[in-house]
Formats: sequence, structure tokens, C-alpha cells
Amino acid sequence: MSKIPVMEIFGPTIQGEGMVIGQKTMFVRTAGCDYSCAWCDSSFTWDGSGKDLVRQMDADEIWSEMRALAGDGFSYVTISGGNPALLKNLSGLIELLKENKISICLETQGSKWQEWFLKIDALTLSPKPPSSGMKTDFEVLDQIVNGLKENGSLKNASLKIVVFDAVDYEFAKLIHQRYPELPFFLQVGNDDIATEDQMNLMSSLVDKYEWLINKVVSDMEMNNVRVLPQLHVYVWGNKRGV
Amino acid sequence: MSKIPVMEIFGPTIQGEGMVIGQKTMFVRTAGCDYSCAWCDSSFTWDGSGKDLVRQMDADEIWSEMRALAGDGFSYVTISGGNPALLKNLSGLIELLKENKISICLETQGSKWQEWFLKIDALTLSPKPPSSGMKTDFEVLDQIVNGLKENGSLKNASLKIVVFDAVDYEFAKLIHQRYPELPFFLQVGNDDIATEDQMNLMSSLVDKYEWLINKVVSDMEMNNVRVLPQLHVYVWGNKRGV
Ligand code: SF4
Ligand code: SF4
Repeated sequence: MSKIPVMEIFGPTIQGEGMVIGQKTMFVRTAGCDYSCAWCDSSFTWDGSGKDLVRQMDADEIWSEMRALAGDGFSYVTISGGNPALLKNLSGLIELLKENKISICLETQGSKWQEWFLKIDALTLSPKPPSSGMKTDFEVLDQIVNGLKENGSLKNASLKIVVFDAVDYEFAKLIHQRYPELPFFLQVGNDDIATEDQMNLMSSLVDKYEWLINKVVSDMEMNNVRVLPQLHVYVWGNKRGV
Repeated sequence: MSKIPVMEIFGPTIQGEGMVIGQKTMFVRTAGCDYSCAWCDSSFTWDGSGKDLVRQMDADEIWSEMRALAGDGFSYVTISGGNPALLKNLSGLIELLKENKISICLETQGSKWQEWFLKIDALTLSPKPPSSGMKTDFEVLDQIVNGLKENGSLKNASLKIVVFDAVDYEFAKLIHQRYPELPFFLQVGNDDIATEDQMNLMSSLVDKYEWLINKVVSDMEMNNVRVLPQLHVYVWGNKRGV
């Protein structure tokens, strides 16, 4: 069987963000990303700092490890990264999960199409705003959205834009207007991914959440949108693997 | 046109809880409830303390007031209470909103069926747990769930149980097991609905959220569930009308 580069497997815990926010889920984090966002909160998956954690695992091994961790205590798996869409051979894991009646949530920035997108129950496309330092390839993103549409899979997908500032917010508007048929989520950016002062972090993130709500509430071009925080940061701060 | 007892109209703001958490929405709060929950956070809708706020309005007047408040700046309306399911003649407002391409979110404890449930885009049934002091009429709740199912409307509905303690949690399990076909949400109860010390309130609610997450995470009978806080309380504390 072909190998998947796995950074960590943990859970069950709660999905802290996006279209299935609050969902009880296991997490599998794959290694590697084609981006290098300025504020990446998972940079250990691609900047070399986590290279000793990477394990080459096949789908069966990943499944066994999840079962060992959680027994029958899950029905949902979140595949996270890095950018899991770099991995064509994730299809094996996705099939194995489906055979076991597990629902699958997956997020990618939308820089690469994979056929197995069509099997994901909750697919989040999260193009990166200017503050990331990255540039969206709209040709690829259009192809992905069209690929989902043609196969009747738009209902399982959503867009999510992380917003740090007013420029990011304008980028978010542009994305929402380009793909109005997709459920649209705005998410507050966490610009202090190192602090251990959790109360302070939470308080500052709630202020930013209110700022983002106010932007949306006063903007008649942003009506059918959802504005969310990252709940896991409220609960666990910047701790990894919870 | 027949009149609806309206307690308040406000927005646009953000839906702070449940199946469309984060959604930009207007709120219409109707007066009157057939329950009297011990910890009701909207008791002014039924305990007499808000009776001077009640206005008898027809659907057109409600619509005009929303337009006056928000112009074209909304595509979603949340009808809240009290128990809006007491009002058969809400159908007029619901039709008017639909004509204007507005999506509708509505919550009720599930003590009464209305034909117009079938027109709601996001219908939350929220039976009350033991800590409320109320008792669920399961015959009625079964009828509601069957009514939704027979009309293909389960996809627009969800269950939400507010949990204050371990006994409430067992009640939640019972509801989830009785209606496994409905998306299931657990919500942390706010047991300090009077305090103005927002930081303290938030910190204590985050602790309770973590407690509830831990219950779910370690419970193999509660897998396909979502655990959420009330985001508006994190942002605005116990303030009304935001
Ligand atoms: S796309 Fe995601 S994982 Fe990759 S660098 Fe950006 S934030 Fe990090
Ligand atoms: S059902 Fe809702 S509005 Fe009625 S008393 Fe209970 S919490 Fe309050």
C-alpha cells in the first residue's frame, strides 16, 4: 500500500472552526504544504521543525492507530495539514474510512484538485488572504469549484477566509462574490500563535471577533455569510494536539 | 391581517448558537411561552416584566421595521421567543419573508406542531433538560419529528440540548438516541444570566464548555454530535438586543 506522510493523529476532540464547528472528530494531520503563510499555525508541518515527527504510514496503519486511541468512540475524521490536497494517494484512506461509515472533513487552500474531493463530506476551501503573503491561483480555484459543481458536490463544500485586517476583508468579499453559490465563512485570524497567556489571548481574540462581526453587519454586500472564531483556541489556547 | 405579538426586532447581528452559528441575521422575538424554564434567558417574553414592550404587529409592519433598521443588509431572519411555535399566524410573516428571498431560522422547544415548520430553513428543536424544571411531552415531540420526516424536511432541522449538569447530559443522550436521524447539538448552559462582569462570565463559560467537550469526547455513545457555546455571550455578555 502507498504511504502517507503523517504528522500527528489525535482525538477524539472537537472541530474548532469552519462548516462543522463543534463536531466530535478524530484528527489526522499530514505533512507538507505548497504554501508558506506568514501566520501559519501549523508551520511545523512544512518548515522542517517537525521533521522528526513525520511517519510514513499506509491507510491501514492510520486506521489502526485511530482505533487504538479512540476505540469505537468516533464517527468523524478531520484530515488536516499542511495541505492534504498534495496527496493523491489519500484516496486509499478516504475509501477505508467510508467503508467504516466514517464521515470526513478536510481543509485545503485550493491550490490543487484531487478526484477524492468528491468523497469528502465537509470540504473547506480556504484561499489565503494578502496578509499571508501568498497569492491565489484563481484558475485552479475556478477549476476546483467547477469540478465540485459538475459532480453535484457543492453541497458538501464551503469557502472559509481567515481575516487579519481590512485588506484581508476585501479579499474575502472578492471570493464571496466570485463564488456566491458556496456557503461562506469568515474566520478571525490568530496573530499571536506563540503566547501561553490564554486569558489575554482569548480576550484579544474576542475583540477581533467583534471587529469582524461589525464589518460584516454594516456591509450590505456581505449578507449570506457566517462569522466564526476558532473555538479550540478559546478552550486550549495555542496548545497542539487537542 | 392578523397580529403577531412582537417583543423586539433587532439586527443585523450574528446568530450566536446552534445549527447556523455565526450566520448574519436579523432577529424577531415573539412574546409568550408555554414553558417557564428555571434558567430562561428570555423570561421577559413571558413573566410579565416585558409586557410594556409587546407590540401587536402584522407581517407587513414587521417587514417594514426590519427594512428600516437594516435596508438591504440582510438575507436571513431568526424568529425567536418565547416559543414562536405558539403562533399559528406566523405563517403570514414566513410567506412574506420567503417572497423576499429571505432564509429563516427558528427555534422552539418542540411542545407544539405548526404546518409552517415545513417552510423554515433552519428549524431547531430544543427540548428542555431536567434542570429547567420542565417536562418534555414525547408524544408531541415524536409527532413533530415524524411530521418533518414525512414531508422531507428533516434536512432543515436539528436538535439542540442545553446542558447545565450531568443529569441534563443524560437527558441529551436519551434525545439523541431517540432521534438519531437528526443533527444533534449540545450547548453549554449559561447559569449566570445577570452578571455584568463579562471577563469572568466568559472564563467560567469556557471552563464549562471544556467540561462538556470532555463528557462527549469520552462517551462512545455520543459520536455524531456537535458541542457549541453561545458566541454572543462571549462577545456581548448578558446584554440584550445585540
Ligand atoms: S496553506 Fe495552511 S498549512 Fe500551508 S502554510 Fe498556509 S496556513 Fe500553513
Ligand atoms: S422554552 Fe425557551 S423561552 Fe420558554 S421558558 Fe424555556 S428557555 Fe424560556
